Amino acid sequence: MSEKPLILVTNDDGIHAPGITALVQVAAKLGEVYVVAPDKPQSGMGHAITINSTLRINHIKAHANAESWSCSGTPVDCVKMAVNKILPRKPDLCLSGINHGANHSINIIYSGTMSAAMEGAMEGIPSIGFSLLDYSIEADFTASSVYAEKICSWVLKNGMAKGACLNVNIPRLHTDEIKGIKICRQAAGTWNEDLDERTDPYGRKYYWLTGEFENFEPDQTDTDAWALDNGFVSVVPSQFDMTAHQVLKSLHSLNGNG
Amino acid sequence: MSEKPLILVTNDDGIHAPGITALVQVAAKLGEVYVVAPDKPQSGMGHAITINSTLRINHIKAHANAESWSCSGTPVDCVKMAVNKILPRKPDLCLSGINHGANHSINIIYSGTMSAAMEGAMEGIPSIGFSLLDYSIEADFTASSVYAEKICSWVLKNGMAKGACLNVNIPRLHTDEIKGIKICRQAAGTWNEDLDERTDPYGRKYYWLTGEFENFEPDQTDTDAWALDNGFVSVVPSQFDMTAHQVLKSLHSLNGNG
Repeated sequence: MSEKPLILVTNDDGIHAPGITALVQVAAKLGEVYVVAPDKPQSGMGHAITINSTLRINHIKAHANAESWSCSGTPVDCVKMAVNKILPRKPDLCLSGINHGANHSINIIYSGTMSAAMEGAMEGIPSIGFSLLDYSIEADFTASSVYAEKICSWVLKNGMAKGACLNVNIPRLHTDEIKGIKICRQAAGTWNEDLDERTDPYGRKYYWLTGEFENFEPDQTDTDAWALDNGFVSVVPSQFDMTAHQVLKSLHSLNGNG
Repeated sequence: MSEKPLILVTNDDGIHAPGITALVQVAAKLGEVYVVAPDKPQSGMGHAITINSTLRINHIKAHANAESWSCSGTPVDCVKMAVNKILPRKPDLCLSGINHGANHSINIIYSGTMSAAMEGAMEGIPSIGFSLLDYSIEADFTASSVYAEKICSWVLKNGMAKGACLNVNIPRLHTDEIKGIKICRQAAGTWNEDLDERTDPYGRKYYWLTGEFENFEPDQTDTDAWALDNGFVSVVPSQFDMTAHQVLKSLHSLNGNG
């Protein structure tokens, strides 16, 4: 690449989260960086977009070595706004994160972080989402930054398969404790919900959505959940073609019976 | 099945939308119906869940022949709330819609309607999302109801492949103009965004997210977009394993280089 790569950075924890600051620092080593990220936390927003209300953007000083714009919308809105309104050209890389908390297995579907990366892929941009298995605001992003730089450099050099992005999760370990990178598939798993019922000061019930993640296949060594449990950084190529191709034939008797 | 099937109905247009009323009427012919649906429109919410604020539910009289609960959250929240808090047992069928507007091709990823069906599938419930290609509040759901009944009956009899749900879209045609059902894959396509820039009464800019859908493969007769353009009801089996299995091998040189 003759000119410096143009790199878009976004996230779902909001433009001032420590995780995006770490990712911007990695990106600034590799190219020219634009940050377009939510003006407030947007965790659990999945692939939501804003169509029933308006969007606002503000050019702010949020990150050294990067043009920064806050956006009132979701992570996916940020990518659309960046590509269509803010960036001088189509970026060479779209990065999302580093998320404070895990996005492996089924979590990808709820994740604003990964939905932003997916939207980047839908726009034809090589895209990567990064998540650290530590929800703390004071999480240590040292090891995550080492691996983010390695993976971003690889993608800038090798490109990305059409229709796919990478879902990268990093275990909560020191850099020298991590065993390396493992290419995986998404583990089958679910959240067993516990809707925590409480009563407000006016006597009315309300609920907090909580739960525990259950891995359906803890012994399968080709899954992201196994990789993370065993000290690896997990990399899952992920796609937005949601067709269950293997199921098409079984629906034959429903077909054509108009 | 000896006892009457238990059917959960939800949507993203809100519990009072005409589309959900049509779907409840279909469901009531086939089983015992519980409606748990958003108390306000939630279009474009994708797979968003509510984790930064609380949820409320209200038992209301919204539909004849069905127990109805409105929920302050997203379509996915509604399914979680229904399964974990409201329904007497795990339902035999989870239906979402009938959406006022199309959810074929890439629209599935933005769709609250389809995300609710996907969440049902994640809970192990045979699940179907229905969408009519008519955004109007006054849309005619006659043909949609005929096909919804046919497809629901088929699924109650034949079950659903594990890990999949059905994305059903109905063209805006009279029943006798529809050529039948076509089992399809999700067409490759995208939204070419146009962020409509306006100025508020205080002189500040704001944006409306709009755009035009582009079908990347209009001549491929195995796609949902083609089926709909040619007068068929499209049925796409859809899954929540987002792993791009075909891409795994191409990442080999990134693997293991810790």
